[in-house]
Amino acid sequence: MVKFSVIVTGDEILNCTVRDQNYFFICNELNSLGYLADEILFLRDSREKISYHLKRLVKDNDIIILTGGLGPAPDDNTLSIISEAFSIPLELNTQALVMIKEAYGQKRINRWREKMAYIPSGAIPIKNDIGTAPGIILNLNKTWIIALPGVPSEMRYMFENYVKNEIIKKFGKINYIERNFILENTDESSISDIIENLRKNFPGIYIKTRAGAMSERGKIILTISFRGDENNFLEILEKIKIEFQEKNVNLKIP
Amino acid sequence: MVKFSVIVTGDEILNCTVRDQNYFFICNELNSLGYLADEILFLRDSREKISYHLKRLVKDNDIIILTGGLGPAPDDNTLSIISEAFSIPLELNTQALVMIKEAYGQKRINRWREKMAYIPSGAIPIKNDIGTAPGIILNLNKTWIIALPGVPSEMRYMFENYVKNEIIKKFGKINYIERNFILENTDESSISDIIENLRKNFPGIYIKTRAGAMSERGKIILTISFRGDENNFLEILEKIKIEFQEKNVNLKIP
Repeated sequence: MVKFSVIVTGDEILNCTVRDQNYFFICNELNSLGYLADEILFLRDSREKISYHLKRLVKDNDIIILTGGLGPAPDDNTLSIISEAFSIPLELNTQALVMIKEAYGQKRINRWREKMAYIPSGAIPIKNDIGTAPGIILNLNKTWIIALPGVPSEMRYMFENYVKNEIIKKFGKINYIERNFILENTDESSISDIIENLRKNFPGIYIKTRAGAMSERGKIILTISFRGDENNFLEILEKIKIEFQEKNVNLKIP
Repeated sequence: MVKFSVIVTGDEILNCTVRDQNYFFICNELNSLGYLADEILFLRDSREKISYHLKRLVKDNDIIILTGGLGPAPDDNTLSIISEAFSIPLELNTQALVMIKEAYGQKRINRWREKMAYIPSGAIPIKNDIGTAPGIILNLNKTWIIALPGVPSEMRYMFENYVKNEIIKKFGKINYIERNFILENTDESSISDIIENLRKNFPGIYIKTRAGAMSERGKIILTISFRGDENNFLEILEKIKIEFQEKNVNLKIP
């Protein structure tokens, strides 16, 4: 099981100046590769906080994706925080410097622009074709730390065009299947016993119920999902449907 | 300074079956009271994870708001996790039991429904007029732990109708002012020196730049914000505007 976490950085997110548009995209992309999201964190631009969580999450995650803090502003510190947290020096990366010079056209490179070319030693720079700040992929004891810009269009472009393929090459792809059903004329408390039993009988399958919104009283949403071979899943799904039928609960496809 | 954190719980959020609709509402409401968001976390329905972060955040937050995990399903464990994390026993709360009986009408109370009436000893139950699961407010060494349902409409209704007033009564309200400007024909790296100076000269003021999206190359967003008396802020704002004018950078109102 490939486990990943996402760290969205930026005071503007926590101050509600900007609504995050990054977590769901990343989480959804990696979920569709069959990977399991461990934690999603939104953190201020605080060296201490980001460093603390990085060190904690690196212990049992295969991939940590950070967004934000790669630009030329004084508080764009993601790379220097990664460097400090894991004692990997920042080095002027010539590839990254070329990328930045291209992004700014013929303009002079000042110290703030050059800052973006200092990346943790051994990291691979990722080209930002539609902005200025390169991203990085850093292999740290088999955990990949991937830093991408916070501007959603740049993050998405770089993920789709460069990062996703590298991730699949390294970590592979697992089949993830999910089915959602609506259970009518019931409520969670009435089917909790059935759910408890199903979980015991089919431990490889993920089963969860959720209450609907106010307008949907009497309707429960049932999610059944699985990582692995589709035929195995469909077989088990049939057995689960029969269990519900026997208890007179109808699984409706939404 | 009143500090708060938000913990959104639910496997469905991390599995991308549902996109979170709660964090921004809560964060925005408390931000508009002048409070400072410390961390926003999305966590799986894991006793271990939720407990770990609760114990950590309680140390220096005034308010922790959790959403999700209050219903009658077997994996709705938020209250039992709070109970275990802080060694506060769950007790059958008669007020909460009345709320639950009202919510289900004349239907029989089964063990799963009754479960929702067991709340940490000393906590105040919050009525859920449009769903079934009550919320709670728990005062823990001056930190308020507030648990609300994950269904967005229920969470919002309860926050607006019961929780917000209680929070203001306890923690007061600070004036929060924010102004956003657009800086044209420049980029972050060109104004980083100005920003660094302003931060030194006006330490009570929050100043941050952000790069625009691809379609807005050459435009920078500048956010200036402040907690406290509006006249003080406006005075300083004028001084900041002059500093930019002197450097030939025009602050445009978006």
